[in-house]
Amino acid sequence: MVTGKYPTKHHWAKVAKNLGISEGLVYLKGDVLKERHDTDVELSFRQESNFYYLTGFAEHDAHVLFDLKTQKMTLLPYRLPDDHIVWMGMPPTEAELHANHETDEIRWSTELSDIINNSGASTLYVLRQEDVPQGVKLTINDQVLKDAIVTARMYKSAYEIEAMREINHISSNAHIALMKAAKNVNSEVELDALFRYETARFGARTQAYLPIVGVGANAATLHYGRNSDSFNGNRDQLCLVDAGAEQGCYASDITRTFPLNGKYSGDAKTVYEIVLQMQKAVLAALKPGVQWEDMHRLASRVAVEGLQKAGVLKAEFSVDELLEKHIDGVFFPHGLGHMIGLDVHDVGGYPKGVERIQAPGLRYLRMRRALEPGFVVTVEPGIYFVEFILSASKNDVAIAKYINWDAVERFSKVGGVRIEDCVAITETGTDNLTIAPKEIAEIEAIMA
Amino acid sequence: MVTGKYPTKHHWAKVAKNLGISEGLVYLKGDVLKERHDTDVELSFRQESNFYYLTGFAEHDAHVLFDLKTQKMTLLPYRLPDDHIVWMGMPPTEAELHANHETDEIRWSTELSDIINNSGASTLYVLRQEDVPQGVKLTINDQVLKDAIVTARMYKSAYEIEAMREINHISSNAHIALMKAAKNVNSEVELDALFRYETARFGARTQAYLPIVGVGANAATLHYGRNSDSFNGNRDQLCLVDAGAEQGCYASDITRTFPLNGKYSGDAKTVYEIVLQMQKAVLAALKPGVQWEDMHRLASRVAVEGLQKAGVLKAEFSVDELLEKHIDGVFFPHGLGHMIGLDVHDVGGYPKGVERIQAPGLRYLRMRRALEPGFVVTVEPGIYFVEFILSASKNDVAIAKYINWDAVERFSKVGGVRIEDCVAITETGTDNLTIAPKEIAEIEAIMA
Repeated sequence: MVTGKYPTKHHWAKVAKNLGISEGLVYLKGDVLKERHDTDVELSFRQESNFYYLTGFAEHDAHVLFDLKTQKMTLLPYRLPDDHIVWMGMPPTEAELHANHETDEIRWSTELSDIINNSGASTLYVLRQEDVPQGVKLTINDQVLKDAIVTARMYKSAYEIEAMREINHISSNAHIALMKAAKNVNSEVELDALFRYETARFGARTQAYLPIVGVGANAATLHYGRNSDSFNGNRDQLCLVDAGAEQGCYASDITRTFPLNGKYSGDAKTVYEIVLQMQKAVLAALKPGVQWEDMHRLASRVAVEGLQKAGVLKAEFSVDELLEKHIDGVFFPHGLGHMIGLDVHDVGGYPKGVERIQAPGLRYLRMRRALEPGFVVTVEPGIYFVEFILSASKNDVAIAKYINWDAVERFSKVGGVRIEDCVAITETGTDNLTIAPKEIAEIEAIMA
Repeated sequence: MVTGKYPTKHHWAKVAKNLGISEGLVYLKGDVLKERHDTDVELSFRQESNFYYLTGFAEHDAHVLFDLKTQKMTLLPYRLPDDHIVWMGMPPTEAELHANHETDEIRWSTELSDIINNSGASTLYVLRQEDVPQGVKLTINDQVLKDAIVTARMYKSAYEIEAMREINHISSNAHIALMKAAKNVNSEVELDALFRYETARFGARTQAYLPIVGVGANAATLHYGRNSDSFNGNRDQLCLVDAGAEQGCYASDITRTFPLNGKYSGDAKTVYEIVLQMQKAVLAALKPGVQWEDMHRLASRVAVEGLQKAGVLKAEFSVDELLEKHIDGVFFPHGLGHMIGLDVHDVGGYPKGVERIQAPGLRYLRMRRALEPGFVVTVEPGIYFVEFILSASKNDVAIAKYINWDAVERFSKVGGVRIEDCVAITETGTDNLTIAPKEIAEIEAIMA
């Protein structure tokens, strides 16, 4: 259970240390309330992540200042015009704001440029040139703040880990609710709606990303988001659900793949078991110092071994040769996982100067660095039978010969399987924040 | 049940007629897919309403052209890059697009500026200068299209009325679900989540506006949107739910106010009955030719009569005097209702040259014009005890003397009541699209 105030001061101390500058004013602009197109329909508000990291303040049109010399933080909430109070309600008082937020001072948004100009600081550090408020007379520096915040955000504090555990538990329970409901549900639409409900009713009203709910072949569209197909009575299909809500701006990201009829069987069971082995192999290997792309390669090796044993890859080739020819990328075409935190694809995946690896699958890795304690990453291997990739591979003589195309045709009915957890890296290994079951026996028991 | 294709051609014919121009090309830009802040988190996509009106096409990054001379329409869907197909799935074929949409021609978004430049037209009519695609050589006119579309959209076609009836039924049923669930629910959070679920699971995944779920005094914040309070065991409160989903971009907008314990009683019942009388009086009077502000005044008169009878307004003053002094605006501080269609606050509320009436309540009217067949409007009278307004009124000698402040203090516990339906204006009167019950006996029976 997350207790106490959001650790704003701790976050500022990390950012100030990363900046290594003894004088100047740091300014961040909170997100503004937006409307749909040219209408007055307000869009649901979600604070910008960097601003939240340095304020814990989720309201719109706010600002924050931090004086690098005095280490003093000033939060500037939006000043609601009097005639809006009837519509929007009374804004919080200064005492209420102090009670709920770690900040040295509270001022109103209307005072922003005066406070900056009278601060005595010479330089204003901002994320983006366009954030600079009108009338500001300080020297502007938009070159150093972003890296300082990214480097701070990469290492999650104890508070942040607990916040992510909480939202992972809420989302895990929602996945369980979907497994339980699947028998009485007839469409992706209903499962999508149910996931949102089962997170929103516990206060997690925003999804960290648009949910993916795909049955059968739809699961082979990696970012399938239509979630609109009916099952038409065909329960002999797998259903892939990649969905995670957020709470207090912290994301969860969980994928489970379960059989609509409650029983894993045949080729679907075979593929599921391979993906589960891929994930378990990686989870067992994760610890500080491990290079992320090596974890992807480990998952690929398990995939190739499994697919060869299942007859999808020809037996006469060695696993090393299959990996060297990137045959794994035909069936596991995305990256193993990514940093997660205030954003589902969180900051800090690539250190400066590190480039993407130009090879199938690896090309899409959102992270290439050695793991460190405090990182939270997703581990999300998958195997898919993607028609678009398979037809291209069949026509590629360098690849086609490694694959047993009769088996591929048979396995294509499976669509795709992905299993994804959110995992914190500790000093010695891992702390898996996701509690949705993934063992075949566990899921079958829940669905029974 | 809405059947058949979206009547794109009919809508273009109306717009072309309103334009009254025999030559030229009309261009509208569909909305683009957007991400959250500087991240790659896709925001849920909702087509821009004018574009939807003239295409029925709900996909992102599309375009449409209409040649005023040939009356030929060209829809230009987004051309998905090949390497996105693995992630997003196969795009619809030209044949599928023709099967689902009324359009003369399908071309790809990549061809847009060439098609415009080779059209032979001299002028390109657009809604906004910034919509003009790069490289276009035609004369640009951004002055006439908006009015032509607004005037078309004001008069809903039979298809549109049926689409609005459908989403009104879905949202009405969700309101009923909330009434049924209220007994076993402990917070605004849960009711908010349930409303979204009970609309989304029938395919209406987008809310036409952010729901308002307020118990007790929260109902007196007109645009209360926190929806975050727990009932803390206090079921002796009214709950105001102002929520409506949209489907195929058509909005619904419904308010119901029900007692958490299932029984209207005491002052809450008194206020509810007054608001219901206000709404019924207006619904009975609605027909073509009626001026909207007169309907607001009619609701105000019923409110003043009711509040006087209830002892909130002093008995020694005449209803005419109370209305003349705008005492109604203390308790009914918002407008009676608004046009609704593709937007919840739909276009066309004010004819050119008509200004807002500068008086309490009336000032916030979103519409001032005579009703015509084909208009769809909301009828949403309310009575509230808004602390901010009441304390100001008590200090205003010109107002304070009309009000029985002891009664106000007692009634303040009620918070607020609003009852809102969506109503189509017919040749002879009205067609109420909303079917959620509002009679006290009906609601009590549902909640029993």
